[in-house]
Amino acid sequence: MSVRITYEELLQYTREVLRAFGYSEERAELTARILVEADARGVASHGVARLAFYETNLRGGHAKLDAEPVIVHETPVSLVVDGNQGIGAYVADFSMRHVLRKAEATGTCFCAVRNSNHYGMAGLWAEMAAERNMVGMAFTNTRPCSIATFGRQHILGTNPIAVAIPAGKGRPCFLLDMATTVVAHGKVEVCHRRNKPMPLGWAVDAEGQGTTDATAVVNLFRQEGEDMLGGHLLLGGEGEELGGHKGYGLALLVELLCSGLSMGTWSAHTFNDQGACITHFFGAFRLDLFGNGDGVAEHVGDILEEIRRGKRVEGQDRIYIHGEKETERRAKALAEGFELDDATETLLGTYAERYGLTPPRFLS
Amino acid sequence: MSVRITYEELLQYTREVLRAFGYSEERAELTARILVEADARGVASHGVARLAFYETNLRGGHAKLDAEPVIVHETPVSLVVDGNQGIGAYVADFSMRHVLRKAEATGTCFCAVRNSNHYGMAGLWAEMAAERNMVGMAFTNTRPCSIATFGRQHILGTNPIAVAIPAGKGRPCFLLDMATTVVAHGKVEVCHRRNKPMPLGWAVDAEGQGTTDATAVVNLFRQEGEDMLGGHLLLGGEGEELGGHKGYGLALLVELLCSGLSMGTWSAHTFNDQGACITHFFGAFRLDLFGNGDGVAEHVGDILEEIRRGKRVEGQDRIYIHGEKETERRAKALAEGFELDDATETLLGTYAERYGLTPPRFLS
Repeated sequence: MSVRITYEELLQYTREVLRAFGYSEERAELTARILVEADARGVASHGVARLAFYETNLRGGHAKLDAEPVIVHETPVSLVVDGNQGIGAYVADFSMRHVLRKAEATGTCFCAVRNSNHYGMAGLWAEMAAERNMVGMAFTNTRPCSIATFGRQHILGTNPIAVAIPAGKGRPCFLLDMATTVVAHGKVEVCHRRNKPMPLGWAVDAEGQGTTDATAVVNLFRQEGEDMLGGHLLLGGEGEELGGHKGYGLALLVELLCSGLSMGTWSAHTFNDQGACITHFFGAFRLDLFGNGDGVAEHVGDILEEIRRGKRVEGQDRIYIHGEKETERRAKALAEGFELDDATETLLGTYAERYGLTPPRFLS
Repeated sequence: MSVRITYEELLQYTREVLRAFGYSEERAELTARILVEADARGVASHGVARLAFYETNLRGGHAKLDAEPVIVHETPVSLVVDGNQGIGAYVADFSMRHVLRKAEATGTCFCAVRNSNHYGMAGLWAEMAAERNMVGMAFTNTRPCSIATFGRQHILGTNPIAVAIPAGKGRPCFLLDMATTVVAHGKVEVCHRRNKPMPLGWAVDAEGQGTTDATAVVNLFRQEGEDMLGGHLLLGGEGEELGGHKGYGLALLVELLCSGLSMGTWSAHTFNDQGACITHFFGAFRLDLFGNGDGVAEHVGDILEEIRRGKRVEGQDRIYIHGEKETERRAKALAEGFELDDATETLLGTYAERYGLTPPRFLS
């Protein structure tokens, strides 16, 4: 079962819930926007269901409502931001706007951020650059959940990589937005709720051995303590035979760009007494650094067009470019509204009761 | 069976072979160095055995001995190089030296290169930046060999990602250097020569179905024609269940940075009438863009140190950081020499006869 809602209705209601949490108007607007954008694109793991996590972070002292990010170091092509444990979307927006401003002036800018919080779907920040005919990059570390090759503790995050590359006027940009783990934790939770085994290759148990027991893996993350045993596998899976050391390398690359270059906290030690202490890394560079920026974007779009036309495996009707499914879902969602699952409907209802808000109006 | 040789002896002999091919002194020196460095680090797939491929490229008109790379566009933070189908290591060295010079001045530089050739092990170019306390990046496309998710033609390259991040004085840098395919083609060839099945998840047949038949896959690449059916899987494997669409996204990202931004030829159309037409993308940025550059590098090194100390799966005695195995092998190789397999020994001997060179002196 599910309910349907319009983009604008969900945006307005989410904004009200965040205001009720104590968010300032600007922070509520920014945060509601990134959550609803994720739902509209079909990325429910980063949608309004995250309100519960954001509330927990506030109550646990991991996020500070009124903290202001500050620039602690800058050059014409870089900056370091201390988020002061502020609201993630607010810190990310502050950082990315400075990145784009500097990149407009000099051609490129990088930004390392420390002491921030969950900033939503990484691709949204990378995409801000593509809208200005720039390549955009957004990386972040997270709470610890994944395993180094040959290790058995979850010490790295899901550590997503997002890169946006413009593909010419009227054509959606290439938007890669991927956790470096094999799957998001949400997929394990779905198997657990449905009492089904998960595919081998998603996670390992406390001994570091591959497991299909989704409930056991969900429980690993509910335990307290220092051991942090078991957890998610990184892209390529267990050991080296199918390239698990490559996924581990990508997660570590993200970790070093974010927590290394910001002099911040790496995933294993996030969510401590100081706050969430999440770190990010952003970057942008203009396509006209390489000649005619519009011509470069068209060339990118032409390559993508040729890939779409390739021969397919039987039973598959399309070869997708990254970001394409989400762009199409978003267009449909804006026109027709979109679905929220039961758990999310219930969550939204809870907030209406608790804070005396007018409940959201669902479609039909 | 195998033979042992010193670094210096192999370097000198490889230089002589390249001179006999017609390489200029500088091109022979650069190319010999990158090939022998790969062997010394245990990356035989990019070692002196590649001489055969380099010779084939010359004879086939894909590489031009005396072509000079030219800068066709530049800004203080970028350049575009046309390699004019020149020798790959010579074009890459030219490009990366300009990148480092500009990054020294402005803090960062990106470089897109078109019409080049195979440049050896990608990590060596990224590492040049790390030696100057900069983050270094090197990407390249290749001849077509890998499959888009749901596709069944090999239209993308192995498209490696190499990133080097300094980790402080006296500590080896983090050096990720990975093909975005599950495995290098060399690993499939080993299974074929030994008449053994390969693990499921490395490659697909002409129908796009997973296969363990290494000989069939090797033969796919020996066929001429336009169909280009079957080929290597990208990291994460077939379909989407274990993240194959992520590996495909990484390969496509590399393709767009290299062939997109350089206005060059993408993997599917390389090795055509004009030459190899390989494209690269290089980048570097200084660690002191983020404050005290030495302090940042030390912080990176400290994170890596903590990861090394994590709990391990039973039977594994180390958690490795990327580049570490290769650094240790290199140190041993410089002190004691290193092994070359029989096929490589035979190849080197062939050149001695053909060009009247003094054969290489092997150890013991």
